[in-house]
Amino acid sequence: MPEIRKDPVIGRWIITSTDDSIDPKEYSYDKAEIKSSEKCPFCGKNSDMIENEILRRNYDGKWAVRFVENKFPALIENIKIDRYADGIYDKMTGHGMHEVIIDSHDHNTPFHEITPEEMEIVIAGMVERHRMLKKDRDLRYVLFFKNYGASAGASLSHSHSQLIATPVVPKIAVEELTFSEKYYKYKERCIFCDIVDQETEEEIRIIKQNDSFLSIVPFAPRFPFECWILPKEHNFSFGDMKKKDFRSLAIILKDYLKRLQIVFPGLPYNFVIHTAPFGNRYRDCYHWHIELMPRLTKIAGFEWGSGFYIIQTSPEKAAKILREAL
Amino acid sequence: MPEIRKDPVIGRWIITSTDDSIDPKEYSYDKAEIKSSEKCPFCGKNSDMIENEILRRNYDGKWAVRFVENKFPALIENIKIDRYADGIYDKMTGHGMHEVIIDSHDHNTPFHEITPEEMEIVIAGMVERHRMLKKDRDLRYVLFFKNYGASAGASLSHSHSQLIATPVVPKIAVEELTFSEKYYKYKERCIFCDIVDQETEEEIRIIKQNDSFLSIVPFAPRFPFECWILPKEHNFSFGDMKKKDFRSLAIILKDYLKRLQIVFPGLPYNFVIHTAPFGNRYRDCYHWHIELMPRLTKIAGFEWGSGFYIIQTSPEKAAKILREAL
Repeated sequence: MPEIRKDPVIGRWIITSTDDSIDPKEYSYDKAEIKSSEKCPFCGKNSDMIENEILRRNYDGKWAVRFVENKFPALIENIKIDRYADGIYDKMTGHGMHEVIIDSHDHNTPFHEITPEEMEIVIAGMVERHRMLKKDRDLRYVLFFKNYGASAGASLSHSHSQLIATPVVPKIAVEELTFSEKYYKYKERCIFCDIVDQETEEEIRIIKQNDSFLSIVPFAPRFPFECWILPKEHNFSFGDMKKKDFRSLAIILKDYLKRLQIVFPGLPYNFVIHTAPFGNRYRDCYHWHIELMPRLTKIAGFEWGSGFYIIQTSPEKAAKILREAL
Repeated sequence: MPEIRKDPVIGRWIITSTDDSIDPKEYSYDKAEIKSSEKCPFCGKNSDMIENEILRRNYDGKWAVRFVENKFPALIENIKIDRYADGIYDKMTGHGMHEVIIDSHDHNTPFHEITPEEMEIVIAGMVERHRMLKKDRDLRYVLFFKNYGASAGASLSHSHSQLIATPVVPKIAVEELTFSEKYYKYKERCIFCDIVDQETEEEIRIIKQNDSFLSIVPFAPRFPFECWILPKEHNFSFGDMKKKDFRSLAIILKDYLKRLQIVFPGLPYNFVIHTAPFGNRYRDCYHWHIELMPRLTKIAGFEWGSGFYIIQTSPEKAAKILREAL
């Protein structure tokens, strides 16, 4: 029986089926491949190919993460911000940052195979960079994201993530913030805290939990086997995460990615850190989290035109499969 | 110089560059292929493979369009609508329709190569079906869309579109409706009529126009070379289109697709008809239109996480290239 579900945060509708879900083996996808390259600019031996390194953190005598300027940046630093009208349209000059985060020392080790200790250094670096960028008064938002595999948008094989810092708040963040604020005004509770409570109590969509984090298949995802990692304690900003939680996050993030790769070997994926914009307006109502999207299905006209998604494996079945994968 | 632009209707931000746009030849994409098949269920000779035909219209002694039930429907007709809470979540049973629109008689003729006369019959059929579905009191919305090419989500080669009729209004429609209504309350004008006026006056983003329609590259698209086809006269509902306009729409639709295929041979694309939900609430503020998305770029983590798009060919340059293609 088809069931129509609404995502509680941004109001997206999805269609899923609670009885005749398909077998994971029936999904077909293009596997991510690591192409070897003598001239990979991200490899240690070619370090001189990178002109501007912004941050580097080491682990065990080797670098574990490097933040470098994107060679083809979408936004450029130090353009004077100028907002103006063009008839009924609005535009502004493109001040911002676009950086590459090389998050694996070794060309052949994808992100989900680095150690939890190395992943902790990557996370610590992202938090540090978030705090640095917050000081730029012209910026409003920092978006951290990863594309793994060509079909998920990665153009280079060597593991890397990216950050884009923008002078405007991206649309999806605006949607989440607007609704969270409305919910908070109505209920005086954070909607994400309510999600954490209900999921912890019901258990059916939980993949894993530890002291500080919960990984779930969300109630109304866009992709089958999608995962959200939520801090159990309320916190609106990724940059405000406590140092003691870096390791817990590394462990639960690696845990989900490992389970996913066991069920779907070589599956491309994206993840995005959803956080509040700079400033304190959303301190009580918003709750930072990570959304991880396995690229199991192609996005076609229907999804584009509607924001409506058809999920062939119900979230409850996907969570069960992921729980049992290890 | 990068420029940040805001879509006036749904508030999406995009980044484009007004000076160093790339050459169309630099885009790489998977070409759409037509695979021949003896057992294509959409071919005339295999008509008996389709169980439930809903509508058929002929042209010149042959069928030009057939509406048939989708063999794997996402929604099923005649399930009693039942809306209920699941803790903080909302869900409902999946009543709705999911139909395939076979829009080319010949297996080897893609939609953009059928004649304007045949395309007119397809459009007339869609309008007719929209009017029929409006009578179902449990339905709120009909979404017509096409996926052309495997990378745009088409699973069969024989040209076809789809319709999904839903008991809820899809998220993207809600966004457009909400903003259009707000704009109308503030200005007492339809925002799409304002777009038609500004684009007609400025001309820089126009691809083509005729008596009744305008095709433009929108000010803040998601894909390079994206196109919107807008009726010049205000009309909120696709199902209310006048018969005299069917031919004009067929001509301008074919015109854009032809130009696109000249610049990018074999390029997969999607299009979606954006219309108001059933009922008259949005009669004054909303304006139906078609959004056509060439699949030139892969959607990755950044776009997913942000709703923010990077457009490597500025809309003005894309419009110029399309204008000069014929």
